[in-house]
Amino acid sequence: MSLFERGLVHVYTGNGKGKTTAAMGLIVRCVGHDGKAAMVQFMKGWPFYGEIKGLSYLPNVELFRTGGDKCFRKGEHSDRDLKEAQRGLEIAEKCLTNPKHDLVVLDEINVAVDFGLLKISDVLDLISIKLPTIELVLTGRNAPEEIIEIADLVTEMVEIKHPYQKNVTARKGVEY
Amino acid sequence: MSLFERGLVHVYTGNGKGKTTAAMGLIVRCVGHDGKAAMVQFMKGWPFYGEIKGLSYLPNVELFRTGGDKCFRKGEHSDRDLKEAQRGLEIAEKCLTNPKHDLVVLDEINVAVDFGLLKISDVLDLISIKLPTIELVLTGRNAPEEIIEIADLVTEMVEIKHPYQKNVTARKGVEY
Repeated sequence: MSLFERGLVHVYTGNGKGKTTAAMGLIVRCVGHDGKAAMVQFMKGWPFYGEIKGLSYLPNVELFRTGGDKCFRKGEHSDRDLKEAQRGLEIAEKCLTNPKHDLVVLDEINVAVDFGLLKISDVLDLISIKLPTIELVLTGRNAPEEIIEIADLVTEMVEIKHPYQKNVTARKGVEY
Repeated sequence: MSLFERGLVHVYTGNGKGKTTAAMGLIVRCVGHDGKAAMVQFMKGWPFYGEIKGLSYLPNVELFRTGGDKCFRKGEHSDRDLKEAQRGLEIAEKCLTNPKHDLVVLDEINVAVDFGLLKISDVLDLISIKLPTIELVLTGRNAPEEIIEIADLVTEMVEIKHPYQKNVTARKGVEY
């Protein structure tokens, strides 16, 4: 029995902090109601993210990580980056058509599109094949207008103040 | 050994979805790095929140819930509501001065101030007594300017699109 009679499409975008973290919070809430969740991460092959171990404590959560173990720059991607994004896309397809899932998070997929690793039509196709009972969450800054248009729920995380303005760099347990 | 050499003060505010959920995602990340977290919820005595069971799966997380089991309206609070907010304040004080914690979330505390259950000075006092090694997260819409001023990291969740515009009401596993 699925948690959602009619699963919606969420987008968490914007330049502020809290997009991936909000999606993880939804996973906590979902499993707290005995739901089943999957998170497919794009461009996040780096092995030191706190969510890897953190999410492993939760029951009924699958985490799939794709992407190289490096920083990405827009416009500079390798064949391996493209292949990894494609691998993420294929996993996402499987998750979105598997009736066991209540919640599927495609983490940083907006960035993968923005950086040219995926096409907008790839994401629109994923949305179109999603089973009706699955809640789908797309995260990452610079969500394309076509995706915002089709989504049911869109939140823009706006950075009002950030400590890198005070030279604080990314910190373990907070940014990763 | 604390996760943070210098813990910062975050605020998640705004009318959009993702404030409490982002704070829960930070908890996931924190325990994923073997940190210890506490969440004190204000105005959330209702027993059906998914986070209650969801967070219980994570190690080293304490959840303290305060507030009556009902909806709140601004300007209409009972003595019990005030007492519950005060109880939350006292728990928050203990959490923020206990060196075992790496992360302390004061969930909906901005709303408790906005609704007149707490004073701005109560929150500023909490920030001032916080141990330097603790990362403090304050959530809730309508964060007062004085708190934004003193915070290190402020994200405003802006609602771009929400399904209640399509008559979808709060749903289990998503909004609660």
